[in-house]
Amino acid sequence: MIEFWKGSHALEPRLERVVAIIAETVGEARFPFDDLAQTASEPKGKLLRPALLVIGSEFGSAADPTRIERLAAAVELLHLATLIHDDIIDEAPIRRGKPSLHSSVGVKKAVLAGDWLFSRCFLLAAESAGPEAATGLARLIAAICSAEIAQDEAKYAFDASPRDYFRTIAGKTAALFSLALYAGASEAKAPRAAQQTLKRAGYSIGMAFQVIDDILDFTSVESVARKPVGKDIAEGLCTLPLVYALNEDGAALRSLLAPLADLSAGAAAGRAGAEAARDEAAGAAAARVVELGAVEAAREDARRFTARALQEIGRLKPGSPRDELASLAERLLARSY
Amino acid sequence: MIEFWKGSHALEPRLERVVAIIAETVGEARFPFDDLAQTASEPKGKLLRPALLVIGSEFGSAADPTRIERLAAAVELLHLATLIHDDIIDEAPIRRGKPSLHSSVGVKKAVLAGDWLFSRCFLLAAESAGPEAATGLARLIAAICSAEIAQDEAKYAFDASPRDYFRTIAGKTAALFSLALYAGASEAKAPRAAQQTLKRAGYSIGMAFQVIDDILDFTSVESVARKPVGKDIAEGLCTLPLVYALNEDGAALRSLLAPLADLSAGAAAGRAGAEAARDEAAGAAAARVVELGAVEAAREDARRFTARALQEIGRLKPGSPRDELASLAERLLARSY
Repeated sequence: MIEFWKGSHALEPRLERVVAIIAETVGEARFPFDDLAQTASEPKGKLLRPALLVIGSEFGSAADPTRIERLAAAVELLHLATLIHDDIIDEAPIRRGKPSLHSSVGVKKAVLAGDWLFSRCFLLAAESAGPEAATGLARLIAAICSAEIAQDEAKYAFDASPRDYFRTIAGKTAALFSLALYAGASEAKAPRAAQQTLKRAGYSIGMAFQVIDDILDFTSVESVARKPVGKDIAEGLCTLPLVYALNEDGAALRSLLAPLADLSAGAAAGRAGAEAARDEAAGAAAARVVELGAVEAAREDARRFTARALQEIGRLKPGSPRDELASLAERLLARSY
Repeated sequence: MIEFWKGSHALEPRLERVVAIIAETVGEARFPFDDLAQTASEPKGKLLRPALLVIGSEFGSAADPTRIERLAAAVELLHLATLIHDDIIDEAPIRRGKPSLHSSVGVKKAVLAGDWLFSRCFLLAAESAGPEAATGLARLIAAICSAEIAQDEAKYAFDASPRDYFRTIAGKTAALFSLALYAGASEAKAPRAAQQTLKRAGYSIGMAFQVIDDILDFTSVESVARKPVGKDIAEGLCTLPLVYALNEDGAALRSLLAPLADLSAGAAAGRAGAEAARDEAAGAAAARVVELGAVEAAREDARRFTARALQEIGRLKPGSPRDELASLAERLLARSY
């Protein structure tokens, strides 16, 4: 059912129950959104965030499986809600190989569908967890919004430092990975030290995950990634490989990037040829980034974050949850989709 | 400071503290949204929802004033978030006499600003109140989204029954009025019976409030309402006066309404003259609704809801909170802005 977790005897059945909770929740909506219902019952993603929450809970002994699975469903609903609103913000036409929700149902309904999912996420969290988890989720959404706004502000400026980039992905991605592992451990009353270790490990796994995600925009082919290739640059995003490449070879790259803002505005206004010209310039810039070795430099950072995560994981009690988490961190570093 | 509450010795200082909490919360945002910050510190609205929460708390004896004011700020943040997202959905250019947020900062940032406010609302609620209040807020947002989606689905069909209309405004407006009074009473540990009475009173006050709001779209002049007049019909909304008018005189009105969907699509696409033609047809339809006496029929419903609210309020313990609430219900019925 969930490709990424096939063969994991501990996690697969639990994630199937998480998917059932999500499908049931979305099924309660008065939405006529077949797409959303289908996404909920046949997830195309890796369910990483709920998986981390379940793994985190295995470090404690007091976990009520149903509560944990409901809380895991809440973090995935939060993720789905942010994806829907992100796609509106990024004007992304495709998500996980299918038209994004706002492309198929319109911006208005996509705004409401995201709001509805946020509210359901909070409801599940408030019903299944202590006030700490609910507070944590609320803080997290605020942090994600702030990161997205900062990212949106900086679009087409192509002037991020590595520090800016890391701050953005910390808010956008790593904070939720961190919260998922921590919330699972906290709900299961794992020892305090293990909770803190898991919080740090989740953060590093999330940082590595997002760096790899951003690398894949430069290296993957469309049929595998199920999303357009080189799109980040076309959309004006300055991810890590581009940050490093601009440090190496500013002038030549900048001449390729300079017309993008105008071409993108032209594409949005329906100007003939603007979209194709934008995507071509972005593709050329992406190719130059790869030539400069900047993708490899970024991959080195992902390795560094993963090593830091594995170091944290090494402090945890030996056993199958620890092995599962270490193996997950390694698989995410090595993935090509 | 807050026009509507001038002279209310009990409420004015407390609402000023609520405004300070809202301003402080919004001030923490990494948003460069001067508009939003100004709205937060100099509210143009009546702060009805926080006022209801504070009034509700006065029926109990265990209220911590700071917790109550923080919870009151949470319901206003929720209201501000829904206004921002509603304006995107309704493509409303003006809100409370000023350009709506998405008109001034763009749809993308308005989506994120709304999300951010939702998350802050939950954070305040989770920090200041019991799990019941947090759960109530989460359920409420889901209900508001469902009502908005149903309303959006029905746009330009102009075929709502009175029952459809009442169901929509129950979700959109009355549920939050009801929750605000109830949550205040519940946090202050008012007697169970009073909590239930306040919940019902809040619902009826909210229903009357929204009917009057919808009537004002037919009767007020632009400079007073600080929003365009007759806009609801232009936007495809079928509010109560129109529902009643269509029952009286379907054919003639329908011929005025028929071109609106097409003209509105034309206006959105920038077709010359489409917006003016749409607003003219909507204005003519609105005038016909008034001629038919449908506004008076709708006002009768608002009176009925207010009477029901006053009947509930009559069951409460005599005293100044009860008088304040009764006087508020009467003022909202009589208002012309």
